[in-house]
Amino acid sequence: MANLDQSKWFTEISDRDGSAFSLRINKKLDEKQSPFQKVEMFETTDFGNLMIIDGCTMVTTRENFFYHEMISHPALLAHPNPKNVVIIGGGDCGTLREVLKHPGVETVTQIDIDEVVTQMSLKYFPELCESNNDPRANVMFDDGIKYMREAAGESIDVVIVDGTDPVGPGEGLFNHAFYTSCLNALRPGGILVQQSESPLMHMPLLVEMREAMLSVGFNDLQTLPFPQPIYPSGLWSVTLARKSETFNGFREDGAAQIAEQSEYYNSGIHHGALATPNYMKRAFDKK
Amino acid sequence: MANLDQSKWFTEISDRDGSAFSLRINKKLDEKQSPFQKVEMFETTDFGNLMIIDGCTMVTTRENFFYHEMISHPALLAHPNPKNVVIIGGGDCGTLREVLKHPGVETVTQIDIDEVVTQMSLKYFPELCESNNDPRANVMFDDGIKYMREAAGESIDVVIVDGTDPVGPGEGLFNHAFYTSCLNALRPGGILVQQSESPLMHMPLLVEMREAMLSVGFNDLQTLPFPQPIYPSGLWSVTLARKSETFNGFREDGAAQIAEQSEYYNSGIHHGALATPNYMKRAFDKK
Repeated sequence: MANLDQSKWFTEISDRDGSAFSLRINKKLDEKQSPFQKVEMFETTDFGNLMIIDGCTMVTTRENFFYHEMISHPALLAHPNPKNVVIIGGGDCGTLREVLKHPGVETVTQIDIDEVVTQMSLKYFPELCESNNDPRANVMFDDGIKYMREAAGESIDVVIVDGTDPVGPGEGLFNHAFYTSCLNALRPGGILVQQSESPLMHMPLLVEMREAMLSVGFNDLQTLPFPQPIYPSGLWSVTLARKSETFNGFREDGAAQIAEQSEYYNSGIHHGALATPNYMKRAFDKK
Repeated sequence: MANLDQSKWFTEISDRDGSAFSLRINKKLDEKQSPFQKVEMFETTDFGNLMIIDGCTMVTTRENFFYHEMISHPALLAHPNPKNVVIIGGGDCGTLREVLKHPGVETVTQIDIDEVVTQMSLKYFPELCESNNDPRANVMFDDGIKYMREAAGESIDVVIVDGTDPVGPGEGLFNHAFYTSCLNALRPGGILVQQSESPLMHMPLLVEMREAMLSVGFNDLQTLPFPQPIYPSGLWSVTLARKSETFNGFREDGAAQIAEQSEYYNSGIHHGALATPNYMKRAFDKK
């Protein structure tokens, strides 16, 4: 069997999945220990730059577009007219860039707890940060859980939870208290969207998230799968939850506009992601 | 960085992609050197059984449904009435099983060069072989390239090329001579479908395949992406090519019937896979 020379490869072992994924590296570019986590940057041979947080692959130049487009566009296009958007996490600023492609959006507030992530992204993923100075953007470094708890009632149209896995600083983003804060801060018809792990490997966690969202009062959920080459199983998901109204399609005209500026997203892919396969349906219906 | 104890993990390094994928194993189940290749079987901790051919991950119990459904159903449903189907390769018999779910199919001939693959599958993936004794099935062990060269003209409705990468025994499945044989053997309106590697990592190869198919006289191509958790990038594709007619949707009623028996495939997913994202369109248009 193959041996990976660990001076030439970065390997993330996913114990919970019994799998590991490795990228070949040219060199280490940077490393910073923030008050919250360790952030490392590598230059890979084939994926561009690679950001690692606490030993987990987060972002590469080559494939981050799948994730950033799919956590942004389906939720914004499922809302009839989103004006005020909040991003919790999202420190690499790739989600912010996608949200700002929507012409109707008036404000986007991004709250990541860790400024070091954004500093690293500004340096090594400048393309993801190209909209940071848009006058509609407000990039804050603070506790997103506290921010949502204190947000004015019915003041937000879309909340995007672009956090890490439910361990470490991201843990508080996957519970009833946080979802209740989001529900209160959303206007009627508002949408919460959250990265929801692998719909192949992490179905129990995904089912639990969905139940927590429903139990605090969100309606009708949608879990959309999409490719995520550097995360376990290569398949990831976002889950959308709406306040007080049921989902009823999405804005096709808006989707066509966004598709012109996208790498992955288009209307057909949105419809396809909504066509939940049987193996997922069965997992959702089991409990 | 993490070190993988190679007594507990199987690692496939993909040199061409600068990535590696590892599965944690409980034990080695079997190993056979055939005249063509080395076939190994492992029991993994999280993916069920795992077949390795010449050091490359081929099939696991847990996730093979994505591949087997997507190499079968879109092509069969894009044909108005497929009766005679040929599978080149496909020795694990998972594609054969999917094809036999189509009630209109009268004969399926599977030609894999290596009987050892099927022997291993019968033992370790019995669920994939459950239709091998269907009276419509003819499981042969022979040279698929020769079979197609000698096939009667206009005798086949769908040819499914379920082979390995274009190296080793699979190499001859990716060239003009082979595609010409397929074209001649297909009836008018017949379809060739072939696994076409990663639409993220292997676009140059995919573009070359598509050009070869067009240059021998196939029409209008469709490349459909789908999840493939154990192959490089976690994203794979099939490419469909039609003889003498252009593609015009697929049989929605047939798709609904198949979706009832599927894990992944349904009509919405088929439509979604046809919604080629911009990054793929650009690569197809470049040359």
